[in-house]
Amino acid sequence: MAECLSELDLKKICIDDPFWNKRLQIAAENTIPFMWEAFNDNVPGAEPSYAIKNFRIASGLEEGKHNGVPWQDSDLYKYIEAAGYRLQTEKDPELEARIDGIVDMLEKAQLPDGYLDTYYSLNDIEKRWTNIKDDHELYCMGHFIEAAISYYKGTGKRKILDIACRVADHIDSVFGPEEGKLKGYPGHEEIELALFKLYKITKNKKYLDLAAFFINQRGTVPHFFEQELVKRGQQEAESQSLRRHEYNQSHMPVREQADAVGHAVRALYLYTAVADIANELGDESLINAAERLWASVVERQMHITGGVGTQFICESFTFDYDLPNDTTYNETCATIGLMMFAQRMNRIKKDARYADIVERALYNGFLSGVSLDGKSYFYVNPLEMVPDIIDKRKGFSYVKYVRQSWFGCACCPPNVLRTLMNLGSYIYAQDKDTAYINLYIGGKAEFEFENSGVVIEQTTDYPWGDTVEIIIKNSAEFSLALRIPGWCDSAHVYLNGKALNIARITNAGYAVIKRSWKEGDKVTLKLPMQVKKIQANPKIRSDAGKVAVQRGPVVYCLEQCDNGKELWNIVLAKNANFKPKYEEDLLDGVVAITADAIREVDKGWDCLYSDLPRTKRVKTTVKFIPYYAWSNREPGEMMVWVRSER
Amino acid sequence: MAECLSELDLKKICIDDPFWNKRLQIAAENTIPFMWEAFNDNVPGAEPSYAIKNFRIASGLEEGKHNGVPWQDSDLYKYIEAAGYRLQTEKDPELEARIDGIVDMLEKAQLPDGYLDTYYSLNDIEKRWTNIKDDHELYCMGHFIEAAISYYKGTGKRKILDIACRVADHIDSVFGPEEGKLKGYPGHEEIELALFKLYKITKNKKYLDLAAFFINQRGTVPHFFEQELVKRGQQEAESQSLRRHEYNQSHMPVREQADAVGHAVRALYLYTAVADIANELGDESLINAAERLWASVVERQMHITGGVGTQFICESFTFDYDLPNDTTYNETCATIGLMMFAQRMNRIKKDARYADIVERALYNGFLSGVSLDGKSYFYVNPLEMVPDIIDKRKGFSYVKYVRQSWFGCACCPPNVLRTLMNLGSYIYAQDKDTAYINLYIGGKAEFEFENSGVVIEQTTDYPWGDTVEIIIKNSAEFSLALRIPGWCDSAHVYLNGKALNIARITNAGYAVIKRSWKEGDKVTLKLPMQVKKIQANPKIRSDAGKVAVQRGPVVYCLEQCDNGKELWNIVLAKNANFKPKYEEDLLDGVVAITADAIREVDKGWDCLYSDLPRTKRVKTTVKFIPYYAWSNREPGEMMVWVRSER
Repeated sequence: MAECLSELDLKKICIDDPFWNKRLQIAAENTIPFMWEAFNDNVPGAEPSYAIKNFRIASGLEEGKHNGVPWQDSDLYKYIEAAGYRLQTEKDPELEARIDGIVDMLEKAQLPDGYLDTYYSLNDIEKRWTNIKDDHELYCMGHFIEAAISYYKGTGKRKILDIACRVADHIDSVFGPEEGKLKGYPGHEEIELALFKLYKITKNKKYLDLAAFFINQRGTVPHFFEQELVKRGQQEAESQSLRRHEYNQSHMPVREQADAVGHAVRALYLYTAVADIANELGDESLINAAERLWASVVERQMHITGGVGTQFICESFTFDYDLPNDTTYNETCATIGLMMFAQRMNRIKKDARYADIVERALYNGFLSGVSLDGKSYFYVNPLEMVPDIIDKRKGFSYVKYVRQSWFGCACCPPNVLRTLMNLGSYIYAQDKDTAYINLYIGGKAEFEFENSGVVIEQTTDYPWGDTVEIIIKNSAEFSLALRIPGWCDSAHVYLNGKALNIARITNAGYAVIKRSWKEGDKVTLKLPMQVKKIQANPKIRSDAGKVAVQRGPVVYCLEQCDNGKELWNIVLAKNANFKPKYEEDLLDGVVAITADAIREVDKGWDCLYSDLPRTKRVKTTVKFIPYYAWSNREPGEMMVWVRSER
Repeated sequence: MAECLSELDLKKICIDDPFWNKRLQIAAENTIPFMWEAFNDNVPGAEPSYAIKNFRIASGLEEGKHNGVPWQDSDLYKYIEAAGYRLQTEKDPELEARIDGIVDMLEKAQLPDGYLDTYYSLNDIEKRWTNIKDDHELYCMGHFIEAAISYYKGTGKRKILDIACRVADHIDSVFGPEEGKLKGYPGHEEIELALFKLYKITKNKKYLDLAAFFINQRGTVPHFFEQELVKRGQQEAESQSLRRHEYNQSHMPVREQADAVGHAVRALYLYTAVADIANELGDESLINAAERLWASVVERQMHITGGVGTQFICESFTFDYDLPNDTTYNETCATIGLMMFAQRMNRIKKDARYADIVERALYNGFLSGVSLDGKSYFYVNPLEMVPDIIDKRKGFSYVKYVRQSWFGCACCPPNVLRTLMNLGSYIYAQDKDTAYINLYIGGKAEFEFENSGVVIEQTTDYPWGDTVEIIIKNSAEFSLALRIPGWCDSAHVYLNGKALNIARITNAGYAVIKRSWKEGDKVTLKLPMQVKKIQANPKIRSDAGKVAVQRGPVVYCLEQCDNGKELWNIVLAKNANFKPKYEEDLLDGVVAITADAIREVDKGWDCLYSDLPRTKRVKTTVKFIPYYAWSNREPGEMMVWVRSER
């Protein structure tokens, strides 16, 4: 097995970037305190979280029963994970004290045998581990383990990691191939990638084995979820087929799976773990499965924004090329899952095309999930919005056109937070002698190679500007691998002002410069950002006759407040003459794009249908804004895929 | 009040027409016996009807409880109504004997006070009239009254009419403005138009008054349905608004209503009755309401096929110009309701544009509801079909791409049957001195005017051919009013071979020829049927950039079996060069249309999105078939609104 890429500790990464600074500051200074109030049920008008209350009861500070969804604990765990990431890079004594308090509660809430899950411990502990399919015990514990690792790394305090090990040891005592243990696996995947992280930090192979057990066991016959159902005294209708298990990807053994199916977040968390574990074990057939599933998601079931899982019912994948724009689901958490999966595939394959997908998801479908002020969220990220449909048809209220401050099922907000706080891990990677830059985000990173170390500084106004400057801060011998984005077909690289032959040095999407670097060496990357008209694969019905507008990594959209109503009557001109322009005061500063278009206007319609020329085509100029920034002004229509003359 | 049009007795109408003969023969010879088996639960594989069984129990022939939906009785009543229509024009002793047997059962099933409804009489008769909103007693009794009138007219046997009068008298004893009577109205409208018919045949004004009471009472405050709910000891959630009453059009008084809302069949049955009763009473404000509601349906909420009620949830109207093609509902019964409403408006207004809508609905959205062999039905009539969406997305299984032989809720099949058996009533109308021809369907009709009578004979190969010949079979003085279809902009009329100046004789869409007719006088109507590219009002989002193809009254579609998959990649050429051709062996004989088009074909797509020219536009020829005939060959994609070069 070839050596794969590894991540840098967040401690080694500092972000200082005009695009991201404000977002990260808002997340740290506004979102973190706000979310704490939400977990404490102190946000007026928001649905209560009960997350803290449940732990207060579980740790003996209050009396009562469990409240909220069965996976309520996990919201708080994602928050702790985010806090841990922050504490790896910043001092924040108030936050640290707050989390220390939670850790104390968690320690008390943990049962003597290591079990930790308020849903069962506050309701009916006798019934624990009897409904692995639906009740999210392993999911919650997985998020706890991730949180513990992050917080341990951020503070060096072992207490939470010890709790996590006891949790994992308990799970290992319940599940496994040995006689008497449950032969099950989670109904919502997550524990696998958490156990993998725990193995990496503790070096205890038992956790890796348990993660691999869950993956190998999944979808085998006899089917565990059918067996546990029978054990609970229930019987599923015989008329149901194995396809019902697609929801949680247990319809067949993982290494036989070729199509991404079922609940999208579940699926992507599984695939992420599959990539981690297959890579660690050098398990070729499992890597092949990961690659097949990658192709299924990215080559056949992904929106141009990185939105995945298009179906509201079951929050799931549907079928190849079924990518509706208006009714799509595209849960923010699923796009985060895609970023995780892409990151892992990039590490295995050392191929920039996987990082291209991280970038696509990050600047589009992920960022659209949160408002510019960081205070409200989309759970669902459509690519086309007609508010009347949401308000006046029944069954579409799952799609919103105004972001919400909180949700009864609040998985997305803390998931967005932990992803933002962990952004550094997506920027850089390395192997023993090469520093990889996957995202162009300003700041510094410190790489340690076998025999040397180096600090690299990035300066850029990406994604608006086309220039990235990289300064080598100390002399060292290593290779610098710069991702040449898939969207860019005329990149240039300059070393200390001298152009390099990019074709000659590019490998798997990276321009690789190997040399003995001197302090102050400067690499300049030029990534010309022409505005592009993107067409969709003709198998995608919803995009027929339409184009999307993209500049650099950023996908654009039309909004009603710039272009009036009935966006469907706008047709981009064949030579649309796109004019990008940075507007400082627009949407916290964006490059907006104007373009020549035709608007079909009513010329005397008094009926629904006619063979007379009642529609006039008039020339107009339309204005595109970045998709991620939609719905930050007044509510209205929005459209990514726009009709276009061919 | 100006004299309005009246219908001809079916007895005076004989249909002999190449397009309709086979359909009517199938309905009479196949559907009528088949449906009898269905009502007797003898159709293998079909969901049981229980319709006969319930009446056998209610009349003491069997023991048991009520089975099926609360409105199960109405299916059988629509069947009796259809049988009555048939017996008005044909001898069918077997059918008559069968219905006589049912009538005997009905007589026994009727309670001494006139009540007739197996759902309550077999379950809990004490609870009758306690849930008028949901339990369809008035709806079923309305259908029974319509059935009784039809069967009485067909056979002259008064027994069923007497039962109907006792039913109506019972209803009159329960509902009305008088002290102690319920101030309610039906949850599903139907009784109003039935009572109107009963008034017309019995001349008993009490029935008209009761129908008018139901209409005037509807939507008044205090709200009857809220009151009956409280009476039943229930309480509706306060958070619900008056809008919840839109479902059954009781959200405001009928004469204030301006928008067609709620369940489409309910709405259209109401509007039909409103037109009947407003006209009879010369009630201008009610006629104005009917006109407003007509405009709401036909000018803002109707598919080009005459399909209405686009929403599956609540089988309802949504909002203006919301006319999705793929997910639409367009229940066959709603299109029948539209035909009824249009017929009544035509009678009031003597305006051909209302009959245009009868024709549009009849040849498109109505006929699509039944297979060419008359054996299977669509409940839902989409204008675009992608079978993968039905099979692989969740929540779309209400749309079918293969017609079904029967339904658990089987309102549509007998509704189609009674409409076909009553087709004559849509062809002709008259006032005191004018014979109106609204539909061009071959056969004879006998008109009686104040001082004379005339037999008229139509010969035509409509809707394929453009010629209608009308022979006057006896000398008489009267006006002949021929509808000039709205789709035809170059009609010609010849009297005994000599062209008339059509502009001079046309009034409200009718070419009116007033003269002393001689036996053998011949009027020839030429209705040139160019193929037309129809555009949609630009407010309709789903049809943006698309056209529909129409020839004469027939709307066309593309089917996969003629044009391959991915119909969305077909773009009609600007000058599409339509070639219509009658094909005897295709779909029981239709004019099919070929046209020049462009097909966007895959030229090397290995990804979802690209700015490279991976799609090639190649010239092709596509073939359109009449929409009504889709899904009579192998299953596959279908599309009415097709992309088109502008």
